[in-house]
Amino acid sequence: MDFTFTGDEDAYRQELRRFAAKVLAPHYQSDDKAAKLRPQLVADLASMGLTGLRIPERHGGQEASAVVAGMAAEEVARGDFNAAYLIIVSALVSDILTRNATEEQQAAWLPPIASGEVVPAFCITEPGHGTDAAKLEMKAEPDGDGWRLTGEKTSITLGMSADVALVLSRTGGPGARGVSAFWVELDDAHVSRAAFDDLGSRAIGRASLHFDGLPVPKEALVGGEGQGFVSVMQGFDYSRAIIGLACLGAAQVSLDEALQWSRDREAFGSPIGTFQGVAFPLAEQATYLRGARHVCYEALWRKDNDVEHSTEAAMAKFWAPKLAAETIHQCLLTFGHLGYSSESPVGQRLRDVIGLEIGDGTAQVSKLVIARNLLGRAYAP
Amino acid sequence: MDFTFTGDEDAYRQELRRFAAKVLAPHYQSDDKAAKLRPQLVADLASMGLTGLRIPERHGGQEASAVVAGMAAEEVARGDFNAAYLIIVSALVSDILTRNATEEQQAAWLPPIASGEVVPAFCITEPGHGTDAAKLEMKAEPDGDGWRLTGEKTSITLGMSADVALVLSRTGGPGARGVSAFWVELDDAHVSRAAFDDLGSRAIGRASLHFDGLPVPKEALVGGEGQGFVSVMQGFDYSRAIIGLACLGAAQVSLDEALQWSRDREAFGSPIGTFQGVAFPLAEQATYLRGARHVCYEALWRKDNDVEHSTEAAMAKFWAPKLAAETIHQCLLTFGHLGYSSESPVGQRLRDVIGLEIGDGTAQVSKLVIARNLLGRAYAP
Amino acid sequence: MDFTFTGDEDAYRQELRRFAAKVLAPHYQSDDKAAKLRPQLVADLASMGLTGLRIPERHGGQEASAVVAGMAAEEVARGDFNAAYLIIVSALVSDILTRNATEEQQAAWLPPIASGEVVPAFCITEPGHGTDAAKLEMKAEPDGDGWRLTGEKTSITLGMSADVALVLSRTGGPGARGVSAFWVELDDAHVSRAAFDDLGSRAIGRASLHFDGLPVPKEALVGGEGQGFVSVMQGFDYSRAIIGLACLGAAQVSLDEALQWSRDREAFGSPIGTFQGVAFPLAEQATYLRGARHVCYEALWRKDNDVEHSTEAAMAKFWAPKLAAETIHQCLLTFGHLGYSSESPVGQRLRDVIGLEIGDGTAQVSKLVIARNLLGRAYAP
Amino acid sequence: MDFTFTGDEDAYRQELRRFAAKVLAPHYQSDDKAAKLRPQLVADLASMGLTGLRIPERHGGQEASAVVAGMAAEEVARGDFNAAYLIIVSALVSDILTRNATEEQQAAWLPPIASGEVVPAFCITEPGHGTDAAKLEMKAEPDGDGWRLTGEKTSITLGMSADVALVLSRTGGPGARGVSAFWVELDDAHVSRAAFDDLGSRAIGRASLHFDGLPVPKEALVGGEGQGFVSVMQGFDYSRAIIGLACLGAAQVSLDEALQWSRDREAFGSPIGTFQGVAFPLAEQATYLRGARHVCYEALWRKDNDVEHSTEAAMAKFWAPKLAAETIHQCLLTFGHLGYSSESPVGQRLRDVIGLEIGDGTAQVSKLVIARNLLGRAYAP
Repeated sequence: MDFTFTGDEDAYRQELRRFAAKVLAPHYQSDDKAAKLRPQLVADLASMGLTGLRIPERHGGQEASAVVAGMAAEEVARGDFNAAYLIIVSALVSDILTRNATEEQQAAWLPPIASGEVVPAFCITEPGHGTDAAKLEMKAEPDGDGWRLTGEKTSITLGMSADVALVLSRTGGPGARGVSAFWVELDDAHVSRAAFDDLGSRAIGRASLHFDGLPVPKEALVGGEGQGFVSVMQGFDYSRAIIGLACLGAAQVSLDEALQWSRDREAFGSPIGTFQGVAFPLAEQATYLRGARHVCYEALWRKDNDVEHSTEAAMAKFWAPKLAAETIHQCLLTFGHLGYSSESPVGQRLRDVIGLEIGDGTAQVSKLVIARNLLGRAYAP
Repeated sequence: MDFTFTGDEDAYRQELRRFAAKVLAPHYQSDDKAAKLRPQLVADLASMGLTGLRIPERHGGQEASAVVAGMAAEEVARGDFNAAYLIIVSALVSDILTRNATEEQQAAWLPPIASGEVVPAFCITEPGHGTDAAKLEMKAEPDGDGWRLTGEKTSITLGMSADVALVLSRTGGPGARGVSAFWVELDDAHVSRAAFDDLGSRAIGRASLHFDGLPVPKEALVGGEGQGFVSVMQGFDYSRAIIGLACLGAAQVSLDEALQWSRDREAFGSPIGTFQGVAFPLAEQATYLRGARHVCYEALWRKDNDVEHSTEAAMAKFWAPKLAAETIHQCLLTFGHLGYSSESPVGQRLRDVIGLEIGDGTAQVSKLVIARNLLGRAYAP
Repeated sequence: MDFTFTGDEDAYRQELRRFAAKVLAPHYQSDDKAAKLRPQLVADLASMGLTGLRIPERHGGQEASAVVAGMAAEEVARGDFNAAYLIIVSALVSDILTRNATEEQQAAWLPPIASGEVVPAFCITEPGHGTDAAKLEMKAEPDGDGWRLTGEKTSITLGMSADVALVLSRTGGPGARGVSAFWVELDDAHVSRAAFDDLGSRAIGRASLHFDGLPVPKEALVGGEGQGFVSVMQGFDYSRAIIGLACLGAAQVSLDEALQWSRDREAFGSPIGTFQGVAFPLAEQATYLRGARHVCYEALWRKDNDVEHSTEAAMAKFWAPKLAAETIHQCLLTFGHLGYSSESPVGQRLRDVIGLEIGDGTAQVSKLVIARNLLGRAYAP
Repeated sequence: MDFTFTGDEDAYRQELRRFAAKVLAPHYQSDDKAAKLRPQLVADLASMGLTGLRIPERHGGQEASAVVAGMAAEEVARGDFNAAYLIIVSALVSDILTRNATEEQQAAWLPPIASGEVVPAFCITEPGHGTDAAKLEMKAEPDGDGWRLTGEKTSITLGMSADVALVLSRTGGPGARGVSAFWVELDDAHVSRAAFDDLGSRAIGRASLHFDGLPVPKEALVGGEGQGFVSVMQGFDYSRAIIGLACLGAAQVSLDEALQWSRDREAFGSPIGTFQGVAFPLAEQATYLRGARHVCYEALWRKDNDVEHSTEAAMAKFWAPKLAAETIHQCLLTFGHLGYSSESPVGQRLRDVIGLEIGDGTAQVSKLVIARNLLGRAYAP
């Protein structure tokens, strides 16, 4: 049992904390106003290795552990919660390609992700049926050596700005076994995009993507035909713990700021932090943050050690974003009138964090996974 | 004991509900984007008598009960939460003027509020010390027959668009007894305004107002000199229950929409409402909304019947906005990806409602009032 | 709209409050130690008309409204939570008999309940399948003019001490339509009883009753054959609101005591009530109690006015006992070391109240009823 | 970072789990009925080394780490929550003596604790002012070479059965510096004891002890005169994390049982675990238990590694018992009618665990410690 990080990890954390405060935080709110991905943000993250955390060194990445990836998301989110999305998506894409793509494909596709040259995305969700593989409608029809993709993907994170995407499409019969994965360039006349107008994470954005017979070559197939769901999309529970840590990072920095405010702000002649009605809710949130953070790191540590971790990942996914939203909400109220204005970033953090209460699996789905693991599959179908 | 409204009240509620749905709701989200008060909104509310609810009939108002004012805020908030602010501020201002201004002053000032010709505001809060009367710094210096006002007011609701305002200013020595109230026209070169960039209620807005020697005539004084706090600002607890009902109205309409969504949306082959993990949280919120709504109406009913109600008003103030925020948050999550986009208004409702968790008294202040009433003043100073 | 009670109702409430404090409270804890029904308790309640609240005046009862029955349960529970069980069970039994028994049957059965001569009970629940009518196994086999009852009933409130009981038994084929209700004397060699050893409400107790061919005459049938569930057991939702008020009464008196303690007890040189960390949780619970209480009375008021109230009754049933348990728990912690000992009754109140979180329908069943009413029956089967 | 225990630790945990299930659990409920300490329980714990966990090997103990002591409390509490008290008290006493007593004193006093020959207790709390050192009233008056102790100690855990006790008494002037610690034999005519009648932990019990001039020799002084508070009573924050783990052990075993029940029990034709309304609350509690457990072990691990841990210990103290009570309460409701009877031990676990929400520091005191550490001492006096 050891609750510390290694010296190297601690040093990296400190470096990231400075980077987040100095380089990322100054743009957090203005990027939200601009409501689009700022290219320099990608470049800045790439310069710190953050877009290639889970990419093998031979392909230009950091080959970092899951724990370190989580730590990176946690620290980056302190400065710019939305920047953590780039870490999360890059890590997930990299892991899938590393496990399923050929060495040639990896050599072609991974280095530009690591270097920040391209921004990747996932195109899985479709209108009307979410991520239910059995109902996936997008078609990949054979065309020469390759395919043509036709259909609509929606709610795609980074959908307006991504250059490349892993696209799930139906190549065969019904059910999950008929679905294949393709690595696709999105900057094409056969792809039209429509931006969402969202409550938060506006610098990252979501979009719908219409594929109108987009041609993809045979080299674009990842894994074999029909492997889209079964092989490609498995084993990524751990990214839910990285999501959790991004949320907790945003919550923790909000708590740190609220604590400072409660030292500085006076009411009725005393710093407001001296009132138990102000201080106790912060003490409570600090406690719960500590517990949730351990659960997230436990999931990642188990991943790194090849131990089953779907329960821990699901715990992290439903609890950490919810707790983060509650904590940031409480901090906003602690700031009072100031917290409600953009003089403080807490309002934006609340808007942003709520997105990850939904994205990548609702609380209900996570609780179903936990219940299934606790009770047995027969009891939570 | 009677849990019903009169036939007239019920009919008015139905009329308001239609009005809110047809006239107000279509502009709710676009007004937020515009981030300024839309004059037609004021005109529409005035056409329904909503800007003069608490103004005597002889001055052009409805002379409505507090219960009916609360009902109006509840119904209007279903269509446009921010429109409820105009009801709340108008009601409060009207009550103060009715109780403290001379008949001549009332005859001059109240009709244009009722007709929607002018929008009123309160200028009380100052930077650094909130609403602590003892520390109020804005000066009213004698000038001829009248005064000149100098100082800064901040966090003023409707601050960018209000035409007139009740301004608290120091005319005498230190403490609450040195403070007087003035009725002031804001469209003047001696007043400069700076808008806040807020998380929500952007169509209403907050602002800082700098008064740079604004001349006010002697007729502008409301009540006697030094009466600004002691007489003028007392007896308005009940408005906290109207605030509560505005929040609950926004929560209830969100819940109604989420219930409809959970009938229509399918997952895993069934409407999501058939899953207890989706339906039970909605059933719970419906229950708590019911309880909080009764507490709000109880406060208003007591006001109408001249019964002490500061406890009930404080209960309404801390509980209803908090519960509304939680309920709307839960509804947003029920909508999932849709709830996070502006296709649904729930995200904006959450942003908007949070403003009233803060405005007009924090949860801590409300709990202090409750504790004081329960324990005795000596135990909650 | 009217949040007051009539003068008569208020006077009755005051009378009950004195009765509860002087006559009931002194025995509350000793009856728990004795773990059996004290006959004088029944006599004392009867002397106040509390065992005949819902019995017509012509049969010796008070013919009280549902609201007044709720008020009685609330006040009695302040002195002795378990005494409220006698009110609840008597009221339910009386209502069923009044609606379903012949005038002759009523004239025979109701007066001794009103006078406290007999204590009634319900025998519905069976081992293994709770209150699922479709699975009810107890048999009523024809025997001469009458029947013989054979089977086991379990978890019977007042099971050790009741003299008479309404017993559901299967007279026909499968399903709810095969079930009939009988009015049965329990003091018979064909009935053997086994007491439960429960966490709380030990003075009332639960028991299993084995019926070993108990003969019942044809006059014992209530309603027609096969009417046991369909007619007899319907329309009693409102009793859940009486249960709710009993729980809230126990919570409110605990809160009153905790407030007094927080004035009297000092820590670090001040009354503990002056610490927000102590006072605010009490202010919060006071607020929620107020809301839940209104929901309970709303259900009863609707019952009295023949308005649909199954939603309100289900809200009362899941919320009030849960809230009462939380409130009493918080009060216990406020008392600290004292609250944990029998010097204070709060510990027993917590044990007792939890019984009604379970009895007469779990929280899940209540939420299902609410969800069904909100969503439509198709969405909450 | 490492979330595992060593192989030895894991083996010890398994051994303890079997011991708790086979040796302890069968007596858990009967000991509560008997309401006194069963000597064989002490002997059984001693046989497993559990009464000497923190005693040096040279004095007959296990010299276990804080982490292992916490693990022991967690596992033992699964079988018999009250047995964990003996671990907690023994560990605390042993630590104080090891740090403050002379080698001769240790050699005399520690072995009989380790062997289970004597049961130790703390006599600190006094009526009226809890554990406020400044107000401690019990007197130690010089008498020959030694002292005579006079005064009352109250709320003493194990007070009826302890053989020896560390007694704080005033030997000098006012304030903490006037207080000394004595190691005292309690089986003496100058000591009279009065048992408390408590809600839970009745097998362990609390008592008031009246000291009526009890003579103690000079060898009984622990540390120097006036060292009672300053040296003796410091550095024991970590025991709050052991308390936390005992509570979490009782919660976890209740959850395990409730999960099994929700597989076995059917309602409406399905195992109740298949209903999300039943399963999701259990999944949520499982998640929070995981987080709180990590916080407890973090505190202990920090203690073992000589790292400041007062924040973590205070987090453990307020959160773990509260969470355990909530979890056990939820499990009790899951069991329904069964959970309310003594057929299931969950009701007793709830009664027992609540004692540690209070004992050894209220939630408010713990939150004050956390707030002080987060804000700085000046902000949480």
